[in-house]
Amino acid sequence: MNTRIEHDLLGDLAVPADAWYGIQTQRALDNFAITGVPISHFPPFIRALAMVKKAAALANRDLGSLAPHKADAITAACDDIIAGQLHDQFVVDLIQGGAGTSTNMNANEVIANLALEKLGHPKGAYQRLHPNDDVNRSQSTNDAYPTAVCLAVQFSAEPLETAIVNLKASLEAKGREFAHIVKMGRTQLQDAVPMTLGQEFEAFAVNLGEDIDRLHEASQLLCEVNLGGTAIGTGINTHPRYQALAVNYLAEISGKPIVSASNLVEASSDMGAFVLFSGILKRFAVKLGKMCNDLRLLSSGPRTGLGEILLPPRQPGSSIMPGKVNPVIPEAVNQTAYQVIASDLAVTLAAEAGQLQLNAMEPMIVYNLLNAMKMLGAACSMLEERCIRDIRANVEQCARHVDNSIGIITALVPHIGYANATRIASQALHSGSTVRELVLAEGLLAPATLDRLLSPQAMLAPAAVDA
Amino acid sequence: MNTRIEHDLLGDLAVPADAWYGIQTQRALDNFAITGVPISHFPPFIRALAMVKKAAALANRDLGSLAPHKADAITAACDDIIAGQLHDQFVVDLIQGGAGTSTNMNANEVIANLALEKLGHPKGAYQRLHPNDDVNRSQSTNDAYPTAVCLAVQFSAEPLETAIVNLKASLEAKGREFAHIVKMGRTQLQDAVPMTLGQEFEAFAVNLGEDIDRLHEASQLLCEVNLGGTAIGTGINTHPRYQALAVNYLAEISGKPIVSASNLVEASSDMGAFVLFSGILKRFAVKLGKMCNDLRLLSSGPRTGLGEILLPPRQPGSSIMPGKVNPVIPEAVNQTAYQVIASDLAVTLAAEAGQLQLNAMEPMIVYNLLNAMKMLGAACSMLEERCIRDIRANVEQCARHVDNSIGIITALVPHIGYANATRIASQALHSGSTVRELVLAEGLLAPATLDRLLSPQAMLAPAAVDA
Amino acid sequence: MNTRIEHDLLGDLAVPADAWYGIQTQRALDNFAITGVPISHFPPFIRALAMVKKAAALANRDLGSLAPHKADAITAACDDIIAGQLHDQFVVDLIQGGAGTSTNMNANEVIANLALEKLGHPKGAYQRLHPNDDVNRSQSTNDAYPTAVCLAVQFSAEPLETAIVNLKASLEAKGREFAHIVKMGRTQLQDAVPMTLGQEFEAFAVNLGEDIDRLHEASQLLCEVNLGGTAIGTGINTHPRYQALAVNYLAEISGKPIVSASNLVEASSDMGAFVLFSGILKRFAVKLGKMCNDLRLLSSGPRTGLGEILLPPRQPGSSIMPGKVNPVIPEAVNQTAYQVIASDLAVTLAAEAGQLQLNAMEPMIVYNLLNAMKMLGAACSMLEERCIRDIRANVEQCARHVDNSIGIITALVPHIGYANATRIASQALHSGSTVRELVLAEGLLAPATLDRLLSPQAMLAPAAVDA
Amino acid sequence: MNTRIEHDLLGDLAVPADAWYGIQTQRALDNFAITGVPISHFPPFIRALAMVKKAAALANRDLGSLAPHKADAITAACDDIIAGQLHDQFVVDLIQGGAGTSTNMNANEVIANLALEKLGHPKGAYQRLHPNDDVNRSQSTNDAYPTAVCLAVQFSAEPLETAIVNLKASLEAKGREFAHIVKMGRTQLQDAVPMTLGQEFEAFAVNLGEDIDRLHEASQLLCEVNLGGTAIGTGINTHPRYQALAVNYLAEISGKPIVSASNLVEASSDMGAFVLFSGILKRFAVKLGKMCNDLRLLSSGPRTGLGEILLPPRQPGSSIMPGKVNPVIPEAVNQTAYQVIASDLAVTLAAEAGQLQLNAMEPMIVYNLLNAMKMLGAACSMLEERCIRDIRANVEQCARHVDNSIGIITALVPHIGYANATRIASQALHSGSTVRELVLAEGLLAPATLDRLLSPQAMLAPAAVDA
Repeated sequence: MNTRIEHDLLGDLAVPADAWYGIQTQRALDNFAITGVPISHFPPFIRALAMVKKAAALANRDLGSLAPHKADAITAACDDIIAGQLHDQFVVDLIQGGAGTSTNMNANEVIANLALEKLGHPKGAYQRLHPNDDVNRSQSTNDAYPTAVCLAVQFSAEPLETAIVNLKASLEAKGREFAHIVKMGRTQLQDAVPMTLGQEFEAFAVNLGEDIDRLHEASQLLCEVNLGGTAIGTGINTHPRYQALAVNYLAEISGKPIVSASNLVEASSDMGAFVLFSGILKRFAVKLGKMCNDLRLLSSGPRTGLGEILLPPRQPGSSIMPGKVNPVIPEAVNQTAYQVIASDLAVTLAAEAGQLQLNAMEPMIVYNLLNAMKMLGAACSMLEERCIRDIRANVEQCARHVDNSIGIITALVPHIGYANATRIASQALHSGSTVRELVLAEGLLAPATLDRLLSPQAMLAPAAVDA
Repeated sequence: MNTRIEHDLLGDLAVPADAWYGIQTQRALDNFAITGVPISHFPPFIRALAMVKKAAALANRDLGSLAPHKADAITAACDDIIAGQLHDQFVVDLIQGGAGTSTNMNANEVIANLALEKLGHPKGAYQRLHPNDDVNRSQSTNDAYPTAVCLAVQFSAEPLETAIVNLKASLEAKGREFAHIVKMGRTQLQDAVPMTLGQEFEAFAVNLGEDIDRLHEASQLLCEVNLGGTAIGTGINTHPRYQALAVNYLAEISGKPIVSASNLVEASSDMGAFVLFSGILKRFAVKLGKMCNDLRLLSSGPRTGLGEILLPPRQPGSSIMPGKVNPVIPEAVNQTAYQVIASDLAVTLAAEAGQLQLNAMEPMIVYNLLNAMKMLGAACSMLEERCIRDIRANVEQCARHVDNSIGIITALVPHIGYANATRIASQALHSGSTVRELVLAEGLLAPATLDRLLSPQAMLAPAAVDA
Repeated sequence: MNTRIEHDLLGDLAVPADAWYGIQTQRALDNFAITGVPISHFPPFIRALAMVKKAAALANRDLGSLAPHKADAITAACDDIIAGQLHDQFVVDLIQGGAGTSTNMNANEVIANLALEKLGHPKGAYQRLHPNDDVNRSQSTNDAYPTAVCLAVQFSAEPLETAIVNLKASLEAKGREFAHIVKMGRTQLQDAVPMTLGQEFEAFAVNLGEDIDRLHEASQLLCEVNLGGTAIGTGINTHPRYQALAVNYLAEISGKPIVSASNLVEASSDMGAFVLFSGILKRFAVKLGKMCNDLRLLSSGPRTGLGEILLPPRQPGSSIMPGKVNPVIPEAVNQTAYQVIASDLAVTLAAEAGQLQLNAMEPMIVYNLLNAMKMLGAACSMLEERCIRDIRANVEQCARHVDNSIGIITALVPHIGYANATRIASQALHSGSTVRELVLAEGLLAPATLDRLLSPQAMLAPAAVDA
Repeated sequence: MNTRIEHDLLGDLAVPADAWYGIQTQRALDNFAITGVPISHFPPFIRALAMVKKAAALANRDLGSLAPHKADAITAACDDIIAGQLHDQFVVDLIQGGAGTSTNMNANEVIANLALEKLGHPKGAYQRLHPNDDVNRSQSTNDAYPTAVCLAVQFSAEPLETAIVNLKASLEAKGREFAHIVKMGRTQLQDAVPMTLGQEFEAFAVNLGEDIDRLHEASQLLCEVNLGGTAIGTGINTHPRYQALAVNYLAEISGKPIVSASNLVEASSDMGAFVLFSGILKRFAVKLGKMCNDLRLLSSGPRTGLGEILLPPRQPGSSIMPGKVNPVIPEAVNQTAYQVIASDLAVTLAAEAGQLQLNAMEPMIVYNLLNAMKMLGAACSMLEERCIRDIRANVEQCARHVDNSIGIITALVPHIGYANATRIASQALHSGSTVRELVLAEGLLAPATLDRLLSPQAMLAPAAVDA
């Protein structure tokens, strides 16, 4: 392999001749091979890094801290990367020591070499334009990296939100489609009172939809960045006007309402916004999991389960049992949900491990947040496309359940009294007769009255029972 | 023991003659003995239950669903309980089956018997005023209990918020007291650049203070209640105007901006607001833990640690080592933080276990939320009163660390260049000399310039280094 | 309140005159009020502490390190406490700073004062017999406390094991009782192939029973103690023969095969045995939870669920729905299981937080282990006594499910081929006919053959299908 | 793309013409894209699957259930895969619905097509040799998949164990190298009593080494497999002698002491052995994390920390602070440890989600176990090679700490009394003098005696202090 030699604090090291990254990235490659997942797995993170570097370059140029030709080359390089170029050069494992230094240097080096090319210099000619002195100017990993993470999380939330919006719409459509199918509601897995299947799906839609708002709110907290704080938040080695300028440029470049955190020392070590964001993802996972549990329960059968809905078959269910079809799509979503709940624990553990002026564990927070969002987005799309939109109701089973149910007697309590109702319920349970049959047999209510009280209209909403 | 006999669906059962609770509470006592922690451990929960019952009684009275003399007696009984009476009669273990039915019935029975006394009847004379038919009128456990929980959590958050406010104020005071003590900042436990001890404590204050806002936001979500939804959110067996009336009364009684959830079917089974609230408590625990880790690290010593601050001694530290004093207060806070993180997992697990129209595991969500807030409040107060307010700075040690530090060379980079700085840093490390000595020895900067650059003013904030 | 004044490193402090504990316990009471759960909540822990103190006193006496009259008095005091006396004097909150120092001193002080009384001296006359110099002689909290914890966990495991044994026996009895009831097995909530209800309960029994062995194995690891290591495992300030003597005495007193850890420095800070033990408790909780989920699923109904078993009613299920009975006992067990899973996280977090030569968070490890065992034991007993032993089978429903099932066609595959079987299965699903009807209609098998192949004997076990 | 058409229960589907997998794998590819991690990421799992298929084929051949030419072809295909061929054809995402059906079918299809080629038939000619009827003969996913997982986990544990053994050896070597360097021990981050740096590293070695035994014990439990139980453990559609034969063949092929589980119905749904195994991995992660925390603490500095050891520099630590070197290797290990702790939660959640006769979530248990072991193994190797073996002691700092320490006074207590010792300790703390100076100044001990008592020999081990 052709190589070029680069130099740093620890000495010389060979780097592949055609690599756009440099010596510090190479050292990180040699050091870290834990997850096998490189930065390039998450393009929004790469774009965010390039935006931060661009904002810093523009601010430095305005303040005279960076020569215009260098600033222009760096800016152009960043634009290329934002547009999707050279993403395969972001090679460092996401779990790494150093609080993100290797990721920051990977970005600095790729941008430096790309800028060098734009200036007509070969890769590695850092005396012309330097990864640290120029690309990283007025920055430390400790402010550039967390700032990029704040952006990356917001960018990554967008496709997830789209997936949730689509899933919600699909559930709402089913809510409308099933609006007139009356079925038994259940509490604690025991027969309760009637509802419609449409209400059940509408409730799923409302339930998941709320988390779109929660994600937006949590994203707001990620708009407060510590850019300009450099090493520990004191802003050492920056120009007094650098912070405001850089943050403004970043807001403009990213299209997000980025502002400075009110206390940069605090912001340098605090992972609170990430913990909260992760908590929202976990909450969504919990809801998604609960819904998929319900879908699997409602579609249980075909002969010995609840059988009120039919999920679309997606693959043969068994190599040994002919005709068996399993709820594989919700099952995969359930597993994703558990994975996200576990991710939230990983984020929590990392956040608690911050020490003094920094949290060295931030890389794994990033890894878990970006991974969780990617998995959740995929799960939502899979669920919508391969399951929800093709769910059918088992209308006969729903009706049969209501007709056989004892729980419908609840609607008669205001008319025949709690004592009579309890007695009839008990008889129904032990005899196998229906409530309707027993009430009529005892002559407790006239047939017409009974029909009215047990009609869906009467049971599905409040009624002036005491009037 | 004197007893009276009561009757329910399952038959007769003896209840202590002087018990204000009744048969269903007695059954729950017989059934559940898991935690040993009764409802009465959490007075805000009892108050919340009584408020819900009062609101329902008033709404039922207005709608003609409850006779005025009954409504008056129930209301008066609720007022007594809100004022703190009979709390020892709330005896059921917080972890219970039945989605809170036993807690709801404990409230219904105590209120019924107290109302009966006000009407001049003996305990148990339920034909006069009934726990179910009258106190629980227009309600199900499935709406009354979650509504009470929403209030109880908000009530319980208040003393916690007060404790956080006090802790924050104490940290701010230390921030001001230590504003002029320059010390070394550290990243990744390695010497970084200077800051003040005041900045460190101010950052703690800002960090914890943010969670007061987060708690407020999360409390807002708890103002949406499902009261009026009864069994599964369809409002079966309620008057069409009951829901609005009852919710309005509850807002008035509780002093909280309580409103109806937009979809009662969804609200009946959703635990999302509790998961989010628990996530905020966890986030605060993570921050509290991180700060206590720092306090223990900064006070490590007295001779072989960092030793930059001195925690007040609170108890002898060792039975074998004379004079040893340990950071027992932060240690206890750390443990509390871990317990709260674990509590959040318990809440998460319970929330995911909801099935169809209800979550049967809500009692343990309540237990964990109320317990976590109680523990966190106690921990904050303990930390403020027994530690933070009496922390002293070890001024000499702070100064010595800055003087000996190599990290201060960062401030010289713009003036002597990165290459020179790296060389000097390396010499300092291996020779044991100070940066100041080496720079002067090499004549790289004039003494006056060096003094200016290494002065606190120059190092603690952005400086026009490139000008 | 009458008080006496005691003195320690920090000065004088008033202690209640009739308290058997002393100044350091008083300081801990003043310092810590987090959980509200005192040591006395866990009698096995108190007994374990007294056993350690007795073993140390006997070893010190033998080596001439403790005057015989003092050793005798201490030993007698310990015997009283082991027998159950003065447990209410162990008042410190289980969550405490100081790595257990306060608990150790609580024991030292109560034993000292009780020993003083036996010698005819008043409480607090420590110049005669001292909590530190005599009771704690040759010990540090750092070896005495973890050693006592190792014993306390083992003692607490005993009633839990008994509860598991009883639960297992009850499940086995149901396995025998239901041995001939054929029902449909289900995988992924979809109808699979037949089995007996007895097999289902027998599997529960086997599943839970395995953890009795696991608890025994994990207890073995707790027999390796660090007694004699004193402050950090080097054994400073002990007699060279003290360690072996004290450990031997402890084995004799406790009746457990206690031995010295092979490396006392390692043993002083290691929490690994507790993490493992907690992991076993978690595993058992997971199994218990899964079984209770199944019990609730199998008993779902009464009309619209699986309805294959009937749980005994334990309390009315609903204030609004007449006749509703809920599976409250398994629900409470499920919640307990979640609480124990969360406890395991608390233990994990505390274990990871050890630093250098000690783990300061051990008190919360103790709290969580003892609490988890207490809750699990109560849950097992409740489940056995109030649910399992009174479960009945719904024989008709089980039979109906098998008769209607399509899954039984699996047994015909070797005889009619996979293709025919798949076609028949599909017809059955869409027509509502039974497999039996369709196979006979097509004349694929003779009635007698079909009866034989679909008989329980043929379907419940391997059969020489290819012969 | 060239394709061939295959057929299953759901109809026709195009498969890439050169794919060794078939239609069901293709459906799974279309259905599941959650993690992006295919089965091929874990070669031991593929080998395990092929071994199970080979064992089944041999047993079926012996029983006359599979024609010899088919059995030979299948066996030969399995041998190729065991030897490493066609691993890239195992393409399904590890997180998948269906309890592993897609993974099982991926194996069945690749083996079938490879066997077909050996018999001279084209891919897809399943009428000659069928993935289900022949490769999967006498099996269900529900026994073949868990059995393969049991093997895969054991195979994957081997490189992890090797990594732990190497790490332990390296720590032991450091223990010997540092055996004579006396330093201060610390409890609760406060100065305690002296020990050697060698003891500290030896304790690390002992601590981690224990988990090799634990992994072995947990692996034993994975030797009990449910092969032969087919769909739900009843062994439906197997020959009465198949189970014993197949299990024996598997033991022989795998080289592991594989035996049948005692109750196959229980074994079909139980995830207990995986929960326990995961718990051991978590325990090891906790220990690894604690050690890395210590390494970072002990190497903190270079000027304002503990500074007792020097970690080898592996990459420049800061883009802004010249000369800064960070403990990046232990930091990456800490993050890995957190990830594994989170994995254990994922496993726990999945295990609790089993329902009735199966656990549909097993795929994510597999994913987390295999991933955790891979990450832990990489972390151990990285730690050993890039950190531990090159750690150096800061001998001067260790000695200085002991000389300055107050904690050494503990060794004088038996000679000058606790009261004198406490007074001297207090004077030392406030005056800055050393214990040695103060004791000599007061004439409490002769210089020679003092030298002897404070010598390493006297302080590092038990001494006959009372003699």
